[in-house]
Amino acid sequence: MKHFTSVNDIDDPMALVKEAIAQKNSKEIAQIGKNKTIGLLFFNLSLRTRMSTQKAAQNLGMEVMILNVNNDGWALEFEEGAVMNGKTVEHIKDAAAVMGLYCDILAIRCFPNLENKEEDYADNIIHQFIQYAKVPVVSLESATRHPLQSLADMITIQEHKIKEKPKVVLTWAPHIKPIPQVVANSFAEWTLASGYDLTITHPEGYELSEEFTKGATIETNQQKALQDADFVYVKNWSSYTDYGKVLPITEDWMLTNKKLEVTNSAKVMHCLPVRRNVELSDEVLDNENSLILQQAENRVYAAQTVLKKILETNF
Amino acid sequence: MKHFTSVNDIDDPMALVKEAIAQKNSKEIAQIGKNKTIGLLFFNLSLRTRMSTQKAAQNLGMEVMILNVNNDGWALEFEEGAVMNGKTVEHIKDAAAVMGLYCDILAIRCFPNLENKEEDYADNIIHQFIQYAKVPVVSLESATRHPLQSLADMITIQEHKIKEKPKVVLTWAPHIKPIPQVVANSFAEWTLASGYDLTITHPEGYELSEEFTKGATIETNQQKALQDADFVYVKNWSSYTDYGKVLPITEDWMLTNKKLEVTNSAKVMHCLPVRRNVELSDEVLDNENSLILQQAENRVYAAQTVLKKILETNF
Amino acid sequence: MKHFTSVNDIDDPMALVKEAIAQKNSKEIAQIGKNKTIGLLFFNLSLRTRMSTQKAAQNLGMEVMILNVNNDGWALEFEEGAVMNGKTVEHIKDAAAVMGLYCDILAIRCFPNLENKEEDYADNIIHQFIQYAKVPVVSLESATRHPLQSLADMITIQEHKIKEKPKVVLTWAPHIKPIPQVVANSFAEWTLASGYDLTITHPEGYELSEEFTKGATIETNQQKALQDADFVYVKNWSSYTDYGKVLPITEDWMLTNKKLEVTNSAKVMHCLPVRRNVELSDEVLDNENSLILQQAENRVYAAQTVLKKILETNF
Repeated sequence: MKHFTSVNDIDDPMALVKEAIAQKNSKEIAQIGKNKTIGLLFFNLSLRTRMSTQKAAQNLGMEVMILNVNNDGWALEFEEGAVMNGKTVEHIKDAAAVMGLYCDILAIRCFPNLENKEEDYADNIIHQFIQYAKVPVVSLESATRHPLQSLADMITIQEHKIKEKPKVVLTWAPHIKPIPQVVANSFAEWTLASGYDLTITHPEGYELSEEFTKGATIETNQQKALQDADFVYVKNWSSYTDYGKVLPITEDWMLTNKKLEVTNSAKVMHCLPVRRNVELSDEVLDNENSLILQQAENRVYAAQTVLKKILETNF
Repeated sequence: MKHFTSVNDIDDPMALVKEAIAQKNSKEIAQIGKNKTIGLLFFNLSLRTRMSTQKAAQNLGMEVMILNVNNDGWALEFEEGAVMNGKTVEHIKDAAAVMGLYCDILAIRCFPNLENKEEDYADNIIHQFIQYAKVPVVSLESATRHPLQSLADMITIQEHKIKEKPKVVLTWAPHIKPIPQVVANSFAEWTLASGYDLTITHPEGYELSEEFTKGATIETNQQKALQDADFVYVKNWSSYTDYGKVLPITEDWMLTNKKLEVTNSAKVMHCLPVRRNVELSDEVLDNENSLILQQAENRVYAAQTVLKKILETNF
Repeated sequence: MKHFTSVNDIDDPMALVKEAIAQKNSKEIAQIGKNKTIGLLFFNLSLRTRMSTQKAAQNLGMEVMILNVNNDGWALEFEEGAVMNGKTVEHIKDAAAVMGLYCDILAIRCFPNLENKEEDYADNIIHQFIQYAKVPVVSLESATRHPLQSLADMITIQEHKIKEKPKVVLTWAPHIKPIPQVVANSFAEWTLASGYDLTITHPEGYELSEEFTKGATIETNQQKALQDADFVYVKNWSSYTDYGKVLPITEDWMLTNKKLEVTNSAKVMHCLPVRRNVELSDEVLDNENSLILQQAENRVYAAQTVLKKILETNF
């Protein structure tokens, strides 16, 4: 494995999940990262991703350099051939090349802007880093995917599933602002690659890109979708077809314990941060079936396993 | 000791002071913090606290993760049961729980807002971190106290006192803005717990909460209070009774060498940052009796001793 | 060597360059910085300087503490004797003294404001840090010089020169904003101290301070200056005489491959960040004769050599 930007960078997703669980349960301190440096570059806010990746790298003995690109560094230009007589001070091709000289691995968070679908789905920032930085690049959530979150989610399902092929439901949830499709895309992709039975439920108009959902059952009736679910993953996203828009919804899509009665005592998942009582009710989040903290904890082992793999393969 | 938020978390304050002095004078490098991670969370600005705590943790072999909560992470909600359809993106109960999974110790700076006395003095942020994070929590200055500063102050007094029970005067000083009562509260609490003779002097209307000053002499005549003082601690605070207000004062409360003539060649202390020639004159600050840099230096050993204690007790 | 703020702090610049190249080619991990702490203080943005200095310090085994002065800490006062009843919260004399207690070395970035020539060229911030912090101070670019950049540039020239005394041309380049003279000053100073043949070319009105250029040939005809050049260093700067101004220029000063034809297949250098197609054309930057990434990479070894030297001399 050189880069880690989607499930497609992985030969055997389930093997990676099992390796992560082995690392989590091992008390051994790895020194494979000694004298290696990772750069964590944030174009956007981060709490879990920042701390869990930093912790994972330190667990491996790596040095960590963090750059909040918009606050600490220079405004970047992304357009090839641009005449840079405006606000941007440095071209990505120079900045990425330089950072690749200083870091053995670069990890990057770069959200979509939700204004231009083609631009966002080209995922240019992360691809330009791969092109110009030369070193392995890890996505800390790009414009299309959040693979470290999805790997942590797969670890969590593996730890809690009681049947080989559980029914997993990904349900849309309400939100007050336009939110990227990233987590939903990535979760669908990884769930399907793991061979699970995936149902996606959302109001009409919230269809995700088929690139990520091929093989899933799409069901716009939430209650019907929840029937016999083993895991329910809750997440808001803005419209993909009417790109970046929050469409008016009349039904109540927030998950409650009442709605969950038809499930197979489903475990409930959310990637956090969660707007309580908007996306998901307190009663569900604080219930014993909630796995939100287990997911968050597994972020460390997801990152650690990916970084270890990259270190083993490339150095 | 599990948490460190006030002198009440300590069985024997003087023993802690003596341990800190021993650590300061020891050249030994402790490795007790190896493979342990501390998270430093700042809701407010910091220079001394940030650097001295980071240095202390590194002296013990710990990994340090720093989060400027307002710039790096998500806006937090503190109200139980809130319907989060406004500006806040993540509830403290989720954020604190997650950070507790990533860090072995959490250290938090959370100033009061000086608008609502009951709210500030409930010290909710630090208590919610204790409630939800599960791991030991260290105050880097909360809404009511600044115990690491006070411990550093006690170390400094211990190093410079020439009699067993010195006379310590805490004097109010002028300022142009409303400043928390935090440092004064905490200093009073620790001085009294150390068995010193404490006089607090301030203009009328600047009485501190009796919770912190019971056992101290209160004297509104500054010159009278200074008589025979061995240590003079200078600090501004806004009114506690007329909460958060700067009351009009006609007398000149800024300390000068002239005013200090009635003292017992008193050592002068201030926690810094200090507004020179407003809170305290250059002539006093730059005099040989000034201990401001000794206090700042002792911040490292205060933090180091507290972290060592927590590591010894909890891991 | 105690401080590192200009070429004048160095006895033998060429020996330092050779030592840096030796360090670069050595695979040995130095532990000379173990249990030593460097503070990196940024009054201004930074990418290369931040990351390369952090990496250099970590390569030597040092602990690194980073402070973005304007975001993380208190607003600083620089005027002696100031009555601090305005926006500044802490005097440099206190802040620097305290940071000197927490750090074994301080490294500081403090740009000029380009409003007051005398003030900028007094380089007060870095000198006050030297005065008050007591510990060795390293310039990460001050109001007058950028010596770590210049040392990296000298390393790069040493690695690529094919004659003992190459012809080096420093050419002014266009920009849309007023830019400090810092890099040009420093490059001239180091090039001359290295015994190279230096020609500086710029439009009339852009003369640099003679303090830095004594011994160089000044030539306002760019094409004439480029004749037989072995190295061409491209950099914009605002006017020194009409201080901080961008003067109207009618000629085209942006370097092209065409213009370079009269050179001795000159290597092209720039310190980055570069505004592509404004300061320097894509065709030149992406040409095989461009050394911009080599310069950036050598920033690590410049910093590492300087820090090693300071550690050897002072501890």
